[in-house]
Amino acid sequence: MFPKNTWYVACTPSEIDDKPLGRQICGEKIVFYRGPEGKVAALDDFCPHRGAALSLGTVCEGKLVCGYHGLVMNCDGKVASMPGQRVQGFPRTRSFPVVERYGFIWVWTGDEKLADPDLIHPLEWADNPEWAYAGGLYHVKCDYRLMIDNLMDLTHETYVHTSSIGQKEIDEAPVNTKTEGDMVVTSRYMENVMAPPFWRANLRGNNLADDVPVDRWQVCRFTPPSHVMIEVGVAHAGKGGYHADPKDKVHSIVVDFCTPETETTMWYFWGMARNFNPKDKALTAQIREGQGKVFAEDTVVLEAQQRNLNTFPERKLLLLNIDAGGVQSRRILDRLIAEEQPQTQTA
Amino acid sequence: MFPKNTWYVACTPSEIDDKPLGRQICGEKIVFYRGPEGKVAALDDFCPHRGAALSLGTVCEGKLVCGYHGLVMNCDGKVASMPGQRVQGFPRTRSFPVVERYGFIWVWTGDEKLADPDLIHPLEWADNPEWAYAGGLYHVKCDYRLMIDNLMDLTHETYVHTSSIGQKEIDEAPVNTKTEGDMVVTSRYMENVMAPPFWRANLRGNNLADDVPVDRWQVCRFTPPSHVMIEVGVAHAGKGGYHADPKDKVHSIVVDFCTPETETTMWYFWGMARNFNPKDKALTAQIREGQGKVFAEDTVVLEAQQRNLNTFPERKLLLLNIDAGGVQSRRILDRLIAEEQPQTQTA
Amino acid sequence: MFPKNTWYVACTPSEIDDKPLGRQICGEKIVFYRGPEGKVAALDDFCPHRGAALSLGTVCEGKLVCGYHGLVMNCDGKVASMPGQRVQGFPRTRSFPVVERYGFIWVWTGDEKLADPDLIHPLEWADNPEWAYAGGLYHVKCDYRLMIDNLMDLTHETYVHTSSIGQKEIDEAPVNTKTEGDMVVTSRYMENVMAPPFWRANLRGNNLADDVPVDRWQVCRFTPPSHVMIEVGVAHAGKGGYHADPKDKVHSIVVDFCTPETETTMWYFWGMARNFNPKDKALTAQIREGQGKVFAEDTVVLEAQQRNLNTFPERKLLLLNIDAGGVQSRRILDRLIAEEQPQTQTA
Repeated sequence: MFPKNTWYVACTPSEIDDKPLGRQICGEKIVFYRGPEGKVAALDDFCPHRGAALSLGTVCEGKLVCGYHGLVMNCDGKVASMPGQRVQGFPRTRSFPVVERYGFIWVWTGDEKLADPDLIHPLEWADNPEWAYAGGLYHVKCDYRLMIDNLMDLTHETYVHTSSIGQKEIDEAPVNTKTEGDMVVTSRYMENVMAPPFWRANLRGNNLADDVPVDRWQVCRFTPPSHVMIEVGVAHAGKGGYHADPKDKVHSIVVDFCTPETETTMWYFWGMARNFNPKDKALTAQIREGQGKVFAEDTVVLEAQQRNLNTFPERKLLLLNIDAGGVQSRRILDRLIAEEQPQTQTA
Repeated sequence: MFPKNTWYVACTPSEIDDKPLGRQICGEKIVFYRGPEGKVAALDDFCPHRGAALSLGTVCEGKLVCGYHGLVMNCDGKVASMPGQRVQGFPRTRSFPVVERYGFIWVWTGDEKLADPDLIHPLEWADNPEWAYAGGLYHVKCDYRLMIDNLMDLTHETYVHTSSIGQKEIDEAPVNTKTEGDMVVTSRYMENVMAPPFWRANLRGNNLADDVPVDRWQVCRFTPPSHVMIEVGVAHAGKGGYHADPKDKVHSIVVDFCTPETETTMWYFWGMARNFNPKDKALTAQIREGQGKVFAEDTVVLEAQQRNLNTFPERKLLLLNIDAGGVQSRRILDRLIAEEQPQTQTA
Repeated sequence: MFPKNTWYVACTPSEIDDKPLGRQICGEKIVFYRGPEGKVAALDDFCPHRGAALSLGTVCEGKLVCGYHGLVMNCDGKVASMPGQRVQGFPRTRSFPVVERYGFIWVWTGDEKLADPDLIHPLEWADNPEWAYAGGLYHVKCDYRLMIDNLMDLTHETYVHTSSIGQKEIDEAPVNTKTEGDMVVTSRYMENVMAPPFWRANLRGNNLADDVPVDRWQVCRFTPPSHVMIEVGVAHAGKGGYHADPKDKVHSIVVDFCTPETETTMWYFWGMARNFNPKDKALTAQIREGQGKVFAEDTVVLEAQQRNLNTFPERKLLLLNIDAGGVQSRRILDRLIAEEQPQTQTA
């Protein structure tokens, strides 16, 4: 259950720089590669000749060459040539709209006529020298919506991430959730608390004292199909919190693209963008390593949750106030999915 | 096909001393943990909030805390609390009757109203300073009844355990099998034979000569649902065999709890209890290591047998006199399983 | 979809010299072992007593002894004896016609009345001191017919084996395919080309210059059920090519037995026979190692192709001139399979 007329993050540029990449997205087996002038291309990962995986092939002069018998593809899915063959009558392979932007490769698996690059979610921190970004990719065996639920209810930090970003005060802070058009925002503000270890390290990374009380905030924003951007940060207490002067705070954006692979598996592109000390590469690497460990903890919980839901598909779950972020996000998804269905049965 | 209104061994105390344990027993996914005052508790391993695996959580002041969002469970399956929530209306999670006794945790997956701890199979050697016990646990991919068949027909020792406890004379000794109420007893006595390596080591462990003829015995007792206790031993020949004076023999009880996980997989709790030199811990460790190797040989044979039976479910097998122990044990199981079925179709 | 009234290569002698071998061939689980006087025998790998895998047993005086309870089998599938049992009434186990010839064990999984050893494909190079042979075995997760397609269209060498035997001129050389009775022959001849690395090493192995132009040939012969023998070689250019004097060429036979395990998995017995420098064991080992690396490249492509075909079973594939070898081979297989079907529905 995922919308298809939308842009998903499919991979990062480095994954296709050297050779084609085969990856399943929204149930479609797709080969991603760099076509003419290095422009990214995406095709059905199935050679029309004998069904070989095109992703095992090579790119030659911007064309994808099947690694089995040398059929040559244009990036629009038309066969360009094949040794010793006349290819005019060869069937065309499905191509997928694909765009490289903001340091990611975005793919559209739905109706290609609707694939407008302007619909790609803007990332204001990308390609911005005042910001630094680093992240990673996890394959997670769960419905991508479980990950959205996870990210839209950060009370889990207290229990899943006890030694890094969790702290008791998260639970105690009231949560506010609202839907604004196709965006869901859920936020929490904590005042005059001690920072947990991950944030203490960040304070030090911005040359701020880490042993004094802070104000802490979490503002999670879901946008379709499966992006969750979370503004997180701490400021020395009493300096204005979220609105404090940059010299008194550390502030980051947790970046989460939850791309469905199948109904019950997903690609988790996670990362963090920050605008303090952006040129400090050692700090960037340190934050990435810490975040990688923290987010690996989520995958264990979510995969076990998915196995439980597979075993007991009929069980009703609770919907509490803390679940409002996930519930409202799923409501948007349900509407988008419904809008994609054929209208034939309407009276 | 297993009876559910009965006590199965679920785990050993050490498996839950540090943290909760998730384990499937008779098809039920269960979390075992130590509740108030260290008393063992067992609940459905499924958080009523979002379906997380409770076994990934922690125990705090005797209560199980879900490792996802901090829902707190009492050991009766009622929700005790949850940060920021009013939990009175929360659904109750199924709890399972569970008892710690004789060095094992016993669970009842059937009708809890019938769960009488007095029905737990008595183990006279447990908690008895004149006896020593050690054992282990194997996960085996076979129907638990194949393991019962195995243990109730020890002719297999000659072929599966050639280098340790097998000897040709087992085959040649007549076997006697009888059902006594809900117990099946199958026994064999060999006279004036040379002890195989495992038993020679035991003779030495009791300071007895290992190079003289012995009388050997095997008395296997099946009791429902899946316990097989086997009295085994050797005595210097002509000293009275099974009834010989303790100074002339070595005598042990092979302990086997064959707990179903699913219809075709099981947890095999194996061990050995002995009443000679019970304080010799090195001997205990040596026997445990030897038994572990011997019983691993069974798992290879049984898993291949299960694959064969899966491939050819329609094939009829032979039922020989040596199979009487397994046949009579299954007859008791079939009756118990039938008695558990609803009586509605009876005229 | 495979013919059953035919001889398949099941294993090599060394696989059964020390102990029985369990292997699935054409969907049949079979135990292969050396019976009386070392003669190979093949039985259903299922003990009639309790369904144990006979392949876990031992051979004693030419009889197969079940490794569970000691049932003793004759090589015709009749039970010879069992400790303490009268076995006259025991059911007979299916035996399979099996022959050791040419350094392979051949099995017939169809109607045993039709199993004529004279139908085994002759291998003129086997047991011939003027030839040397070495090979290996790969388990490949694909329909055996995908491997036949692969071997009957060597244009793939250019793309799959770029660094060893591939070269652009293969594509450019015309291919000729014809069916002769139950044999399909597809051939290619290249003139005045530079030899690729694998063939340069072979030239040096026959003390021939490797840096001069050569004529190269590939003559692939499919015979049912799944043998593909490929005459391959290079001669110094202008010396007569395929017909050149032995001192001016290197010539080998690529040997491929593609034995079905199940509908979508196979055993790939690959090897190479050569008649130059046959006593040079270091050369034999070097060729075997090189061939092993080359043929492993095929398995990656074919397993990905099989996964694609599983995902899209309805997709039509192209049938080009280069596919004629595979197409004509499958046509013979289809006819043989049809001939094996019962004739009852014929009017």
